[in-house]
Amino acid sequence: MISGKAIGHKIWAIPEGYIPSYSNGPEPEMTSHETVCILNTGRDDATVQLTIYFTDKDPVGPYVVVVPAMRTQHIRFNDLSDPEPIPKDTDYACVIEADGPVVVQHTRLDSRQAENALLSTIAFPVE
Amino acid sequence: MISGKAIGHKIWAIPEGYIPSYSNGPEPEMTSHETVCILNTGRDDATVQLTIYFTDKDPVGPYVVVVPAMRTQHIRFNDLSDPEPIPKDTDYACVIEADGPVVVQHTRLDSRQAENALLSTIAFPVE
Amino acid sequence: MISGKAIGHKIWAIPEGYIPSYSNGPEPEMTSHETVCILNTGRDDATVQLTIYFTDKDPVGPYVVVVPAMRTQHIRFNDLSDPEPIPKDTDYACVIEADGPVVVQHTRLDSRQAENALLSTIAFPVE
Amino acid sequence: MISGKAIGHKIWAIPEGYIPSYSNGPEPEMTSHETVCILNTGRDDATVQLTIYFTDKDPVGPYVVVVPAMRTQHIRFNDLSDPEPIPKDTDYACVIEADGPVVVQHTRLDSRQAENALLSTIAFPVE
Repeated sequence: MISGKAIGHKIWAIPEGYIPSYSNGPEPEMTSHETVCILNTGRDDATVQLTIYFTDKDPVGPYVVVVPAMRTQHIRFNDLSDPEPIPKDTDYACVIEADGPVVVQHTRLDSRQAENALLSTIAFPVE
Repeated sequence: MISGKAIGHKIWAIPEGYIPSYSNGPEPEMTSHETVCILNTGRDDATVQLTIYFTDKDPVGPYVVVVPAMRTQHIRFNDLSDPEPIPKDTDYACVIEADGPVVVQHTRLDSRQAENALLSTIAFPVE
Repeated sequence: MISGKAIGHKIWAIPEGYIPSYSNGPEPEMTSHETVCILNTGRDDATVQLTIYFTDKDPVGPYVVVVPAMRTQHIRFNDLSDPEPIPKDTDYACVIEADGPVVVQHTRLDSRQAENALLSTIAFPVE
Repeated sequence: MISGKAIGHKIWAIPEGYIPSYSNGPEPEMTSHETVCILNTGRDDATVQLTIYFTDKDPVGPYVVVVPAMRTQHIRFNDLSDPEPIPKDTDYACVIEADGPVVVQHTRLDSRQAENALLSTIAFPVE
């Protein structure tokens, strides 16, 4: 697979988004956060557009990130700022669109209480 | 994706349902709960029917929720009341049927002990 | 869906099996356990055969369970005893074969430490 | 399924890799670790090649493991050493390639804080 063959899908969805507003433990590793992990095994850089959906207002985006060829990027939603930060303690969802095949996984670390909790799932591959 | 294109499937299933009957920590965010997160990226509102299956009695439903166009709804099973509340500490399962394509994810926060635990998975796309 | 239509697949796999050997908290709900949740939405009972795979010995099974029509069963691997109990603190995997379509999800509650941890995923649908 | 029929896919991907660098609790079961669980239900041994992708350097691999016929292997990334150990506290991703069909699941136990957290998901089946 070090051959540079591109694998995966171009569109993925994560319905369950939520960034807890407070944390316990040392920063930044124990800061409550939500992450989208993108793997690009291909020989070409992948430009990825994230669109954020909400419960009661219009979608916001695109947030644009580049995942270089044969690299992975683990992007904290907490760190996205352009076009605007994602509000904390707010239900959201995310659609990920890349210009080449990638693989996407979703993870949250919740440290609102003294001991952290984790969740993860492969995102839903749309096409 | 802000184009309003509808993505996903119309029928989804979650075999593992269970609402813990007690909690620790501040309400409502730390109340033990189980959530179905539904993303509707399309231009039309989606009417969603939830049917709840049990171990030893007939299914109950439909519970009807509307996910507006280009919105997400994170619905706590705890909050469903029509036709009847879902009993606590009881094994159940859920089938989700929408009148248009949606994407569904399942999450539980369990705060029965002092520190919360989380689980999540993309639901099973049936068709 | 209360119509009784059967949905899902007949063969599923769970590569990650492990029953922790000790627990904290009140029994049975906080006993460390591993669960296979099976949903049968059809009008016919489903007979399900579980085969357990190990690291260094031959597979054991089948463990036979019946999931009645339009019911869900959340089966603790801890409780399986015929043909033999599944050893604790031992890596295993599981293949689930039903005589009709079902949907399968895998969950573990680990209470070896004072606060429980959870994991879950939809099992892998084979065919 | 004790018949020895091979099930699954030959290529799988896990975008979210991260081995925490510290732990709490008794070793080795409570050591923070990340695991790839591989199930080989077939009659032939499966040779599996793991390639590790990073954020800012070239992929490393292959790490070669054999999953014997009709066996499961739960491999801790912590234990891989050839061609080189996987660095701790570092984002990575993994592609799994087998010479026959297998099923793959990803799990992490994070015990950086006093109580452990768990995550798991079926890996993404590529082909």
